Amino acid sequence: MTDPFVVVGGDAAGMSAASKAKRDAPGGEVVVLERSDWVSYGACGLPYYVRGEIADVEDLVVLEPRAVIEDRGIDLRRHHEAVAVDREARTVTVDADDGRYEQPYGELLLATGGRATLPDVPGTDLEGVFSIRSLAAGRALKNYIAPHDVRPARGVEGAGGDELRAHLDEADPDAVGIVGANKIGIELAEAFVGRGLDVHVFDAGPRVLPAFGSDVAETIEEHLRDGGITLHLGTTVEGFRGRDGRVEAVETAVEPVAVDAVVADVGVEPNVEIAAGAGIERGPTGAIATDEYGRTNDPNVYAAGDCAEKRHLLTGEPIHWPFALAANRAGRAVGRTVSGSPTPVGGVVGTQVMKVLDLQVARTGVVDHEEARTAGFDPVSALITTITRAHYYPGWSRMVVHATADADTGRLIGANMVAPEGTAHRINAVATAITAGMTVEAVGSLDFGYAPPFGPVWDPVLGVAKVLDEKLR
Amino acid sequence: MTDPFVVVGGDAAGMSAASKAKRDAPGGEVVVLERSDWVSYGACGLPYYVRGEIADVEDLVVLEPRAVIEDRGIDLRRHHEAVAVDREARTVTVDADDGRYEQPYGELLLATGGRATLPDVPGTDLEGVFSIRSLAAGRALKNYIAPHDVRPARGVEGAGGDELRAHLDEADPDAVGIVGANKIGIELAEAFVGRGLDVHVFDAGPRVLPAFGSDVAETIEEHLRDGGITLHLGTTVEGFRGRDGRVEAVETAVEPVAVDAVVADVGVEPNVEIAAGAGIERGPTGAIATDEYGRTNDPNVYAAGDCAEKRHLLTGEPIHWPFALAANRAGRAVGRTVSGSPTPVGGVVGTQVMKVLDLQVARTGVVDHEEARTAGFDPVSALITTITRAHYYPGWSRMVVHATADADTGRLIGANMVAPEGTAHRINAVATAITAGMTVEAVGSLDFGYAPPFGPVWDPVLGVAKVLDEKLR
Repeated sequence: MTDPFVVVGGDAAGMSAASKAKRDAPGGEVVVLERSDWVSYGACGLPYYVRGEIADVEDLVVLEPRAVIEDRGIDLRRHHEAVAVDREARTVTVDADDGRYEQPYGELLLATGGRATLPDVPGTDLEGVFSIRSLAAGRALKNYIAPHDVRPARGVEGAGGDELRAHLDEADPDAVGIVGANKIGIELAEAFVGRGLDVHVFDAGPRVLPAFGSDVAETIEEHLRDGGITLHLGTTVEGFRGRDGRVEAVETAVEPVAVDAVVADVGVEPNVEIAAGAGIERGPTGAIATDEYGRTNDPNVYAAGDCAEKRHLLTGEPIHWPFALAANRAGRAVGRTVSGSPTPVGGVVGTQVMKVLDLQVARTGVVDHEEARTAGFDPVSALITTITRAHYYPGWSRMVVHATADADTGRLIGANMVAPEGTAHRINAVATAITAGMTVEAVGSLDFGYAPPFGPVWDPVLGVAKVLDEKLR
Repeated sequence: MTDPFVVVGGDAAGMSAASKAKRDAPGGEVVVLERSDWVSYGACGLPYYVRGEIADVEDLVVLEPRAVIEDRGIDLRRHHEAVAVDREARTVTVDADDGRYEQPYGELLLATGGRATLPDVPGTDLEGVFSIRSLAAGRALKNYIAPHDVRPARGVEGAGGDELRAHLDEADPDAVGIVGANKIGIELAEAFVGRGLDVHVFDAGPRVLPAFGSDVAETIEEHLRDGGITLHLGTTVEGFRGRDGRVEAVETAVEPVAVDAVVADVGVEPNVEIAAGAGIERGPTGAIATDEYGRTNDPNVYAAGDCAEKRHLLTGEPIHWPFALAANRAGRAVGRTVSGSPTPVGGVVGTQVMKVLDLQVARTGVVDHEEARTAGFDPVSALITTITRAHYYPGWSRMVVHATADADTGRLIGANMVAPEGTAHRINAVATAITAGMTVEAVGSLDFGYAPPFGPVWDPVLGVAKVLDEKLR
């Protein structure tokens, strides 16, 4: 590394790569170009910040910028936006407050992240229509929905903050609409209900959280409704109606629903503009294609995090998987690779966990039969209802566990589960078994821990594996 | 099965075998000989019963005897005690209330369980010295320690109950001694503290819960002391001193400690008398030796549960593993095997979890270096201190995770962890990885779930695997 290792984007993947490269090769120069005020921000915490459980948005930041610069020796340049890459000259064009410059690189990591996909309907430009993918946007949203008397006095800093400031001290909403019954949508619904708002969730599909499996969706929907959230499922959002430039209703094919604010994140799309401009290839998902080391079609250019594809270990196919662990891991691997120890970025098996009010919801692998068949499996599923503690131990709850096996090989290929306790970490054992290629017979024979406060003698994972094993005989 | 499948002992292993055999081969005759009043009792719940969290000891019973008989078609004979086996004649000698008889068998399962090992010191026969391996003993103990005004009026039924009745309505203890800082001892210490008693735990060893790893013991000991439990570690119990036939002190090499009751279960030993009398071989642990299908040296005689050995999958050695899941699994496998589908009883990797006041304590695999070297491993360990939720999510606690790898192969071979939340189910992912033979590099690359309420981005299991991986490079 005579020319520096240059990282575009200072969030999970970028800062993991920079830190690892600096640690493994302290003599090398590492430059991080971050267009905003923040680095290593935990965007996964934004719903909890919006709810008010986390007092200050700065609390989400994993590393203080100064600590990064001083302790790690990384040349961190905030408010420096990479706008183009010249692969022949090996330079990045950077816009900074004091002008534009060309930054040479030896190796380059594109960790440009993702952004909210807004629905392609009229009214997304109205005041009160938000997305929640940056800290600045999160703070603006929190302030917008806060009652006036508890609204923080400080303004919004960082990228996009100035435009959003105008929203503050304007509204005092009663009803909020959320477009998309996906993970971020449901987490926000919980946050809004926690603040006493009237919450409406819209989704064109028939079920909430389709990624978590239709077999447990009913349990989740009942819980959301009991929690005071209004679900508009099978309902296409046709636009947002405004008055004086501010949102006042969500328009649907059925009837308009009056709201004072909307979060309209229907998905996450990768930020690939710089890559595309430089001739870096994208894969079938639209995100940047990479090899197992995170390398793009240019061997000196890597991509990691929400802008890049990952490989699904079960299907073998590329997948866009915009989640924190995958980004951290890929960044760390690239940091190691550029320091001389080639390290695979690792694949995913699709593990996700989330809190839904008082439920823990978890999934891993391939749970949908159509998806399983497309991947070449012959799916067989089982659903069991069990309990979260020994039957005699006070405080047990019902747990619903669904699992899928491949009838050809007997392998466990997916599971999803819902309960007030005990699914968020249990799913990791299933993820491990899937990664190891275990059959349901082998999973049913695993030596799991048992104590009355933590589960039944036959752990739910073993229980569902036993049932699948009987089915396959 | 022209002659019946006869099961000696109606707890976890025996009832699992009987139920499975009856379900898989409904035409076959299944006889269960149980010397007590109860079947399928959850002895693991006794500490919680003693504490008072479970109102009635009958709540611990998994199956009501009548339901067993009527719904499953099993010939369950309570108060029938098997006293001898004639392998040539294929009969069991049974003592029942109305006399002795010879019961023919086609195949026989010895599921005779285990019993408390009492220390070989003077005074174990004093009134107020208890063990806690049967429901009757548990009830007697609970009544003994109960204040008079809340003592239940009903008596003790079942084996051993009559002798113990004499203890009731006699004592109103203030201080209780527990011999052995093992799992049952610590669970009982918690139960007694929960009832407002002054609790003294004695152990000759330097640490509590040695099976759970010395590296986390300090955390547990601090928590126990904060919880009001007095630990007498490195303290050999030399006997129990009585007055008028009732225990009044625990005698140690240091000084006597005044107590009103003692639980003296220093371990569990297998009930092998019937087996030994019939020439059934025992293994190096003293429990009944079996092959992978639970068969003894007589192909028509099986053994399962606390009276039989299991195989440790990592060390390859026989182990006495008197825990509920292993007993249930082995019983079920034998039930299947005698019904015509030979099924291995499965090995263990040593997974244990327990609640210690407000801590979850978990272990799996081989965590002790001496034990690892004996098994042919070259152990390398790492200890990390991490947190149970994202750093910005309210309510996180400290988690201590210790893990051991084999330097020769890079395989993960053991882990132990302690925290107020999130270890009881996390350990199962480690157990799965160990069973699959994964290296620490592979474990560090696993795709685990992440959400701020449930852990840091790098799950503690991944975190400790990463550190071990770096150590091994």
